[in-house]
Amino acid sequence: MVRWEPGAAERLQSAAMELFAERGFAAVTVPDITRRAGLTTRTYFRYFSDKREVLFTGEDGLPELAATIFAEADPQLTTLEVIVQGLTNVIAPRFDGLWTSLRARREIVRSDEGLRERELRKVSIIAEVGAAGFRQRGLTASEADLAARLAAMIYDASLTRWLDQDSESPLADIIRETARNLTALAFEGAAGERAGRQS
Amino acid sequence: MVRWEPGAAERLQSAAMELFAERGFAAVTVPDITRRAGLTTRTYFRYFSDKREVLFTGEDGLPELAATIFAEADPQLTTLEVIVQGLTNVIAPRFDGLWTSLRARREIVRSDEGLRERELRKVSIIAEVGAAGFRQRGLTASEADLAARLAAMIYDASLTRWLDQDSESPLADIIRETARNLTALAFEGAAGERAGRQS
Repeated sequence: MVRWEPGAAERLQSAAMELFAERGFAAVTVPDITRRAGLTTRTYFRYFSDKREVLFTGEDGLPELAATIFAEADPQLTTLEVIVQGLTNVIAPRFDGLWTSLRARREIVRSDEGLRERELRKVSIIAEVGAAGFRQRGLTASEADLAARLAAMIYDASLTRWLDQDSESPLADIIRETARNLTALAFEGAAGERAGRQS
Repeated sequence: MVRWEPGAAERLQSAAMELFAERGFAAVTVPDITRRAGLTTRTYFRYFSDKREVLFTGEDGLPELAATIFAEADPQLTTLEVIVQGLTNVIAPRFDGLWTSLRARREIVRSDEGLRERELRKVSIIAEVGAAGFRQRGLTASEADLAARLAAMIYDASLTRWLDQDSESPLADIIRETARNLTALAFEGAAGERAGRQS
């Protein structure tokens, strides 16, 4: 018989984040996490397949959501506009209020090679799923692949920059700025025009 | 005492590729590989840190080479032009004649989650190292990060498409086409304009 624990996944995630920050990812075991959370290892494995996965949930469904948005966007928009609209309207609001905890999570991910690779896999899943949305929008397979890679790249570059800042600012603004910077890179020479612009 | 074996790394790579293709990556051990190559495990570990790494050498130095090219390119070129020039002139020639073996390698990488993650890490190393080249070229840190992500994305999307084809064609042509398609995605609406264009 499985007893349902209200908020169990969140309690396990909080306990894991605390312990990883205190002792380092490698030194923490699943029983350490469940003890801190006051839950059983059986409950843990109902939610997460291994120790690593506790850091990689909470964004479930985002790639599918992004794919739907890409597929249903106004046909008059350019692909880049569709990407920016989807990321700012639907993805950015999900990250509101999570800046501090996402910064802490990033420190943990960066500390471990296996976690870094798992994080890259997450971004590549966004690209794979997003491509389906662009194909529905009428792009050829290779165009859809490229569009989804572009979306994943803007998403990841924007998140990185957002978390690099000293204080929280709206993620949506950074997504728009990333897209503008990318357009400029494609069309402006490096010398002169770049002088005086700030990072 | 360490005896130098001429061509040992290449013999080990060939043996590993054969065995992975025959039995699957998971079923092959390092001693299997060294037995097939007629070498010792000690020799193996002089070249590769584990079983996985035998699939991830041979492109050593490419990220550094790309960074140098990005740093030294004509200042009048746009960043996108620098990327295309660097990839077509310096990276593409290195892959000439390797189409068949790179396709076989890709099948092996795709068969294993750990190998897929390691492959993503390789692409992210290209982006990290490339960013240094763009900073030398005078881009700000965040512009350089974005430029290098763009370079890595064009590299990876082009290689994927090159290996997806039914027969070998020049990689440099595909790199140029990928850059053109990317520019089009940023500036053209999805409807109408896309009609009749081929993949």
